[in-house]
Amino acid sequence: MRKQAARRRVTRIEVGDDGGVVRRAVREDHLAAEEPLEIRLGGRSFVVTMRTPGHDVELAQGFLVGEGVIRGRDDLLSARYCAGEVDGENTYNVLDLQLAAHVPPPLATAERHTYTTSSCGVCGKASIDAVRTISAFDVASDPLEIRPQQLVELPQRLRDSQPVFERTGGLHGAALFDGRSGELLAAREDVGRHNAVDKVVGWAVEHDKLPLAGTILMLSGRAGFELIQKASMAGIPCVAAVSAPSSLAAELAQEAGITLVGFLRDRSMVAYSGAHRLVGEVTRG
Amino acid sequence: MRKQAARRRVTRIEVGDDGGVVRRAVREDHLAAEEPLEIRLGGRSFVVTMRTPGHDVELAQGFLVGEGVIRGRDDLLSARYCAGEVDGENTYNVLDLQLAAHVPPPLATAERHTYTTSSCGVCGKASIDAVRTISAFDVASDPLEIRPQQLVELPQRLRDSQPVFERTGGLHGAALFDGRSGELLAAREDVGRHNAVDKVVGWAVEHDKLPLAGTILMLSGRAGFELIQKASMAGIPCVAAVSAPSSLAAELAQEAGITLVGFLRDRSMVAYSGAHRLVGEVTRG
Repeated sequence: MRKQAARRRVTRIEVGDDGGVVRRAVREDHLAAEEPLEIRLGGRSFVVTMRTPGHDVELAQGFLVGEGVIRGRDDLLSARYCAGEVDGENTYNVLDLQLAAHVPPPLATAERHTYTTSSCGVCGKASIDAVRTISAFDVASDPLEIRPQQLVELPQRLRDSQPVFERTGGLHGAALFDGRSGELLAAREDVGRHNAVDKVVGWAVEHDKLPLAGTILMLSGRAGFELIQKASMAGIPCVAAVSAPSSLAAELAQEAGITLVGFLRDRSMVAYSGAHRLVGEVTRG
Repeated sequence: MRKQAARRRVTRIEVGDDGGVVRRAVREDHLAAEEPLEIRLGGRSFVVTMRTPGHDVELAQGFLVGEGVIRGRDDLLSARYCAGEVDGENTYNVLDLQLAAHVPPPLATAERHTYTTSSCGVCGKASIDAVRTISAFDVASDPLEIRPQQLVELPQRLRDSQPVFERTGGLHGAALFDGRSGELLAAREDVGRHNAVDKVVGWAVEHDKLPLAGTILMLSGRAGFELIQKASMAGIPCVAAVSAPSSLAAELAQEAGITLVGFLRDRSMVAYSGAHRLVGEVTRG
């Protein structure tokens, strides 16, 4: 596996109560590694993303699920690093995937990321229709039931599975749990929160576990629209985040039938959609 | 100005020491607003970004500076919302900008975001060359000197200028300070950290202040490669972040001559590049 942290000489400075510098020291520090990854489909460039090296095939697979290009492992024939070299070393920053013959190739980048219609259709309810990719999985019908106590433990379990964060403080984390047994299925770190989710979903592709019925996706930070979209595309019925969701994330979660929990900390949480999955009588503590 | 926070009915749940639910209440909550913005150039779609509504013209202007399309206000003729309507109301989610006649139109999206060369050139030093956009401004020669005590105050001053974060907990912040006087020049919030920086840079475009020599850009979160690139394109000589930078952010800052400070909290900080701008004798406190 590629290095997920890089060493660098840094200068640490401390300021005293009087405003003066009381300490200034040069030392070695660990930084979260960030490098570009170019994902190619059949030799053609598809997307370039800045990511933390490692689990690149998972990242690519998860990204393709999120974009609606593949639904499972059978939709891919192969994945290999291009033999690009710089100073005589393979860079491992270009990954070429071959789609199976039955998979229609996706639209070109320009068509995916921009709208060529002349109408102004990017807005409110219409925007959700325009921006989102329709999921193949019926998340709304997932019968998962969750005891809130289960969720309370997840932030710490996610943190425990983030070894590179421990050293660098610079990585987002995403972890997938079985909603019934509580088992940790997979946890991934990345400088980009989208990438961490893509890697977890890519793990599921690799292990032929799509759709991810009955699972809980735990996020180290905030929950935006695109993360809920990725969960929807992977069939995940519950997303829990340590911090706040955005308005559009809550709207999409509601519409897709995903239970969205935010501000999961200090034994409390806020459910923004799908609160019916959070079960348990209220008792006087 | 459009609403930057949205109201939503949520369910708040508290778990007791015994693992049971001790409180479950439905209430109204404020969420950080997130909606798509389509930026068009001369009527042609250029990019779609998820953003918090408000300061949209600044966002577009700052984005165009970061992409190397414009260098100042004179490069733009006009900016107006498209008259798109949904249910009889303008969506304010499509913004059309007209470039001045002397400004070459940028490459199409596909050409900007993907590499059409057949070599595997996305890697290490080469990747920085490939991904970054070359700045028109000589940031490295900026004679700015900063007392560390100045920096120590900035996180709280940024927080004080984030009214929507106070209510929602869901927004990134970026603030621009004059490095000599310490004056707060502009502060902006957004669900996307890139957008918050674009809005601040767009403010500078609007006030004809590019390049932003002698300024300090304060970020509420982490510092990734793309944020340093945006600072470089705007001529900002110092970027300070509450949290960690990535490895590539530190490398680019070094190369561009930007002073990059991270982990700015509790009267201490770490300089990842350009520590020479941080002045002041070390005294015994």
